[in-house]
Amino acid sequence: MNDLNIIKKEKPEIPYSEDSDAIFNSKILVVDDSALIRELFGAYLTQAGYTDIQYAENGQHALDIIDENIPDLVILDLEMPIMGGFEVCRILKSNPETKHLPILIQSGRDTASDLTKAFSHGASDMVLKPIKRYEILARVKVHLENRILVSKLTDYHDRVASELEQARQIQLDICPSKHELKNYLQAYGLDIGWHYEPSSEIGGDIGGILPIDETRIAFYIADFSGHGVAAALNTFRLQTWLTSASELYSSPDELLTKLNSFLHNNLSSGSYATMLFFCLDIEKQELTYSAAGSQPPLLQGSDGSKEFELLSSKGMPLGLRPHWDYENIKFPFEKNTKILIYSDALVEVEVEENTYLGEEGLRKEVSDLWHEEKSTEDKISQLVANFHQRMDPDNSDDLTIICLENVNELRSS
Amino acid sequence: MNDLNIIKKEKPEIPYSEDSDAIFNSKILVVDDSALIRELFGAYLTQAGYTDIQYAENGQHALDIIDENIPDLVILDLEMPIMGGFEVCRILKSNPETKHLPILIQSGRDTASDLTKAFSHGASDMVLKPIKRYEILARVKVHLENRILVSKLTDYHDRVASELEQARQIQLDICPSKHELKNYLQAYGLDIGWHYEPSSEIGGDIGGILPIDETRIAFYIADFSGHGVAAALNTFRLQTWLTSASELYSSPDELLTKLNSFLHNNLSSGSYATMLFFCLDIEKQELTYSAAGSQPPLLQGSDGSKEFELLSSKGMPLGLRPHWDYENIKFPFEKNTKILIYSDALVEVEVEENTYLGEEGLRKEVSDLWHEEKSTEDKISQLVANFHQRMDPDNSDDLTIICLENVNELRSS
Repeated sequence: MNDLNIIKKEKPEIPYSEDSDAIFNSKILVVDDSALIRELFGAYLTQAGYTDIQYAENGQHALDIIDENIPDLVILDLEMPIMGGFEVCRILKSNPETKHLPILIQSGRDTASDLTKAFSHGASDMVLKPIKRYEILARVKVHLENRILVSKLTDYHDRVASELEQARQIQLDICPSKHELKNYLQAYGLDIGWHYEPSSEIGGDIGGILPIDETRIAFYIADFSGHGVAAALNTFRLQTWLTSASELYSSPDELLTKLNSFLHNNLSSGSYATMLFFCLDIEKQELTYSAAGSQPPLLQGSDGSKEFELLSSKGMPLGLRPHWDYENIKFPFEKNTKILIYSDALVEVEVEENTYLGEEGLRKEVSDLWHEEKSTEDKISQLVANFHQRMDPDNSDDLTIICLENVNELRSS
Repeated sequence: MNDLNIIKKEKPEIPYSEDSDAIFNSKILVVDDSALIRELFGAYLTQAGYTDIQYAENGQHALDIIDENIPDLVILDLEMPIMGGFEVCRILKSNPETKHLPILIQSGRDTASDLTKAFSHGASDMVLKPIKRYEILARVKVHLENRILVSKLTDYHDRVASELEQARQIQLDICPSKHELKNYLQAYGLDIGWHYEPSSEIGGDIGGILPIDETRIAFYIADFSGHGVAAALNTFRLQTWLTSASELYSSPDELLTKLNSFLHNNLSSGSYATMLFFCLDIEKQELTYSAAGSQPPLLQGSDGSKEFELLSSKGMPLGLRPHWDYENIKFPFEKNTKILIYSDALVEVEVEENTYLGEEGLRKEVSDLWHEEKSTEDKISQLVANFHQRMDPDNSDDLTIICLENVNELRSS
């Protein structure tokens, strides 16, 4: 053991990095059937400052230890009784829990087949025996630095992804299911098609249907500036504000005027929302709406052979000015009349290089599509499929589409 | 070039991984002053399926290329004219943009000093010349797999961290600044101390001060189940609901009763909030409050020499039952009276093994602390410092503390 004593007199050569504590507290598992070699590694590593080293004398023993507590690095011999190193690699790589665990192979033979086999079984690195202390320490440090980086990023990912999944669930909970909506609106003689798709886990688009009484319902679509978490927080503000403003549902202009003041007082500076708010009176067959700079709704009157037309959606976006007077627009909504509202993502896609679909492009597309013999749901699915084909995956935005039709099954016109 | 022709007849030995497209489309930069060796690497890599390979003939040339477009892996010679490999390593590692870029050194000399120097300068790996094709390909693949993993995780981190930072800013915007609050409450003859600290970027705690009229203000503290994004979304619902419920500020019992119904209808099943809502009448020197299962407030009456006492905070948490009748509790709030409200995180910390601070522990601590000659702000800072010393960093929760005192500077009692 003279060799080990010499080592102990040397100072560690590894320069301390920013995470030196984390590196030297990392768990290292040394797997070798030779007690002498295990001891040698132990001495090298301890002397260099590593504090948490475990030992296994064959592959099965190593797997048992890893099963208890996953280390940060495995230093692995290839030829061992009971279970060799190749098999350990294969098993660790096939388990999602240990897939990214770095494995440093130490091999007695410098052959192409051993090296290729080790790497193809999932080894991260390979050194040749006899073990050189300086090489082992340098490579161990590189793998642990990387392991710590990956662990930190993975922990962040897992924590935040689970938070965002909960948040997404809450946001989806706000929206009634398609089935519920369909049943609910049937009582009003209305058919609905609906698509909602946040660009990331949660989004800044929101739409909803709000009952007023037996013959009137309100519905809306809104799109907050930005997307992701911050925009989603604002959709919750909007939705909550609306639940407290039911007396305004039948006056879209007044509702937007008051909502504008609320958002102006509460949104961060520069944030805003575009919105369309509708009140549909089934008995009067009349649709009243007010717009705050959203996309123009598409309307097809009771004569289904005609094309859809673009309605006005002019109006100051909400939240930008302390006060703004919004206006009502009214039009008949007789049997077979259809209205389609959508967020800007749907028209802000390239149909060919430097040419965007735009509102007029969408109007034509919808007019053609709605002449086909398909359910409203299938037509909307087709719009969504077209959208996905055109959209730039690096620059995605939340997408909402709602189509309401007076199918008038229960009432006479 | 006979050698290269032989290589071309061989099939790639590297098995395709799940990300094989991403791996083979990765950018590899080969840096060597020998045209022959560059060509050799190029042939090895192209033959193996790599499609995006660039070449540099010295270190400076490499840095120029990297400056234009960061590759996914650098294969780097050590000895080159103009700038050698060690210097390239050092420069890449010192730049945050290229810090995690894998560098595979190829060295002509198998010496301890070269290897140690290369790794300590930031190399990820080292192979010895003459270059073995199978070894280079195996190591290149390992580094690229890791690079792709780190890139994906880093992209996720950067995108979400920026979203959460925006969201945090929005959540902090809800809270008035300490300075604003202090000035504002001075007009009522009140002094305030206040601390808010989400456990992650954004949290499920919320507190606020709501003016009623010239002689009355309301204030509250609420804590949603869970934390992180989902809980934060709920704080926005609460805050928005409150802005629409100003007529209830002077009736805490009625406010909680109505809020309970709203949350029951809107929270995900199993989610709830604890809350204390206060209405302070400065003229009558009377505090009325209602509790929904929060932490008991701490009160010190007008005789500052006495200890703080724990007030009742019994009451069903909000959102669990469709209907619940909350009750008002009233007590005098004369000159020098102080009330301290806080989220459960403050008392759910270990003071020694298996012993938690608890409400009684906090009561004693606050009683002692408030006898000291310090500003309210300093006392709260001390409470927060104690909390940080005791808290388990792996199990953190949102923390809110509010202390209000009748300093009665402007009004006679």
